[in-house]
Amino acid sequence: MSSEERIDPWGRPDIKDYRRLYEVFGIRPFSEILEKLKSMGVEPSAFMRRGIIFGHRDMDVVLNAWASGEPVAVVTGFMPSGQFHFGHMLTGLQLVFYQRLGFRVFVCMADAEAYAVRRVSREEAIKSALEEFIPNLLALGLDPQRTEFYFQTGREGPYHELIQLFSAKVTFNEMEAIYGDLSPAKVMSALTQAADILHPMLKEYGGYKYVVVPVGADQDPHIRLSRDIATRMKGEIELTPPAATYHKLIRGLDGGKMSKSRPEATIFLTEPIGEAVRKFKVSLTGGRNTAEEQRRLGGEPDKCPVFDQYLYYLVPDDSELSSIESRCRGGALLCGQCKAMGAEKLAKFLEAHQRSLEAYRDKAQSLVELPKY
Amino acid sequence: MSSEERIDPWGRPDIKDYRRLYEVFGIRPFSEILEKLKSMGVEPSAFMRRGIIFGHRDMDVVLNAWASGEPVAVVTGFMPSGQFHFGHMLTGLQLVFYQRLGFRVFVCMADAEAYAVRRVSREEAIKSALEEFIPNLLALGLDPQRTEFYFQTGREGPYHELIQLFSAKVTFNEMEAIYGDLSPAKVMSALTQAADILHPMLKEYGGYKYVVVPVGADQDPHIRLSRDIATRMKGEIELTPPAATYHKLIRGLDGGKMSKSRPEATIFLTEPIGEAVRKFKVSLTGGRNTAEEQRRLGGEPDKCPVFDQYLYYLVPDDSELSSIESRCRGGALLCGQCKAMGAEKLAKFLEAHQRSLEAYRDKAQSLVELPKY
Repeated sequence: MSSEERIDPWGRPDIKDYRRLYEVFGIRPFSEILEKLKSMGVEPSAFMRRGIIFGHRDMDVVLNAWASGEPVAVVTGFMPSGQFHFGHMLTGLQLVFYQRLGFRVFVCMADAEAYAVRRVSREEAIKSALEEFIPNLLALGLDPQRTEFYFQTGREGPYHELIQLFSAKVTFNEMEAIYGDLSPAKVMSALTQAADILHPMLKEYGGYKYVVVPVGADQDPHIRLSRDIATRMKGEIELTPPAATYHKLIRGLDGGKMSKSRPEATIFLTEPIGEAVRKFKVSLTGGRNTAEEQRRLGGEPDKCPVFDQYLYYLVPDDSELSSIESRCRGGALLCGQCKAMGAEKLAKFLEAHQRSLEAYRDKAQSLVELPKY
Repeated sequence: MSSEERIDPWGRPDIKDYRRLYEVFGIRPFSEILEKLKSMGVEPSAFMRRGIIFGHRDMDVVLNAWASGEPVAVVTGFMPSGQFHFGHMLTGLQLVFYQRLGFRVFVCMADAEAYAVRRVSREEAIKSALEEFIPNLLALGLDPQRTEFYFQTGREGPYHELIQLFSAKVTFNEMEAIYGDLSPAKVMSALTQAADILHPMLKEYGGYKYVVVPVGADQDPHIRLSRDIATRMKGEIELTPPAATYHKLIRGLDGGKMSKSRPEATIFLTEPIGEAVRKFKVSLTGGRNTAEEQRRLGGEPDKCPVFDQYLYYLVPDDSELSSIESRCRGGALLCGQCKAMGAEKLAKFLEAHQRSLEAYRDKAQSLVELPKY
């Protein structure tokens, strides 16, 4: 794959990127799935309705399987390091959506990858998984009885056997498409991710099932690799190319990426509410240079990190969101007023989340097998 | 490592190679260990006495540990594919030697590597391990009660966790020293071999112990990699750089390498005795062009594949071997006569081995955990 054909790793593809995703990589518009869901009597999630989830592969296959009562699963992974934040929540809420439809849920704590590629110490990975990722995912609504959490290194059964077998089925070129410059650690991580995605299909993990993986567009090379490996194992192990959905990542408060290493741009679900509100209030916006100019030209919500927080999480009601958007565009809603309203919503949201989190604080240890080293 | 600094992969280093091994790579002459063994009251094996084992790293450390009653282990691996032959026996007999001294024995069936690097099917690897490698090793004298056989893919415990962690501690350059051209499969294999060598030091595999690995000189890059990884894990997992001994590989009957893929040059321990004798009788020798010339100049046992079979296996008595050698060099023993004598020895050897093999034919299955896929 030439660098021109790479997908923007920021996960906010522009229109040119979409065309490339659809035409070059064969990702299909999610709109067709939206229609299908409605025709099946399933209420699409806000992420789906609002175009945050914009593409898919084979999601129709998975939905057909689900509709005819076949076993289906949703699979994802988090690199456990630091605190759970608004970026992670995007995947977390998708897991909850599928679980409520009856999908089995597999959540990988990618401790091996964190250690090998990001130099996250073993202690930090375990601490972050047990104290941040797992409790927050449960507080978002994942049912602990119907969710399988695991650490990559501690995974029992033939999972590691798959990694060994997969190594014979892939090329360096395919891995370079994922990681650019390669290292032994990156080779290992790519193979391990393929096992994360594909191992739920084995009988040792509950029997054959269709799998969907919700990812950012930048993760598509992982999906393609897993799909290719699944095909290439034919005759040895029966695997089906996994389905995927593609979402746009939420903007950080400075317009860049939300990330542990950019705390000023990132809202953490367990941080003191006052601290989150302070950051929110100094967020970049899609506003104009002066109030006068903004009244005249209107704001630009599609460039606004504050509006992104509404779009993704803080305004679940579509008509309220639409009203905010039109008042912003029309110049009636100025940024100061908007932020004051948003800060209140954010505080309420975090308060409710942190309250429900209490019940899950010490729950994680009993839900997951710990790595030994 | 430049290609000039590579070790001859045929494993029969010439004098220039020895100097390189000793000076460039820090391998030490085995002669010093020979003396040490004698001073400890241990009778060296024929391979040691005869210079077949010619070098070592840290073998003195392992022997000191052994002498003071600390736990010690010998670790090796075989790629299970096809039949067990005279090339494999060289390592097999070394395991028996160490086991009789009280070393624990770990024998890896390198099924993952066979599959990934040599395209050996999973069925073939399991069949070959159960029907050929394990029974023949037992028939050579390994005590099934004190030998731990395992398949790489089926290995339980934190073995696979080590592979993940090790991937962060090595570079591509180090792996290229082992494999030349790299592929994902080769990266995986090199990391897995490091886990094979180092995992017996973990408490989950019987507690900390010193480890020695008997290898051909061509395998030294694996040893160096494992030693480097052991050092680099310091502060995370306590591992000691493994010791190693280095041996010269036995010549095939045509002067080349013994290998499954070169059956005419290779003596298999389970082949029909008549077939082995037939191949032996048409072996290349160190003889001259004519009988007259040979009587005048003498034969060249150090170039002779037939003499190699004596040196390694068929003439355990040193004085008999020395007499054969001097009669050959002196021109008294001609190749025809020598081969007739050797053929008889070979037939006897195989007869005895195949007889003792009977007891172990169906034993393997109960001694090793099978891979699932």
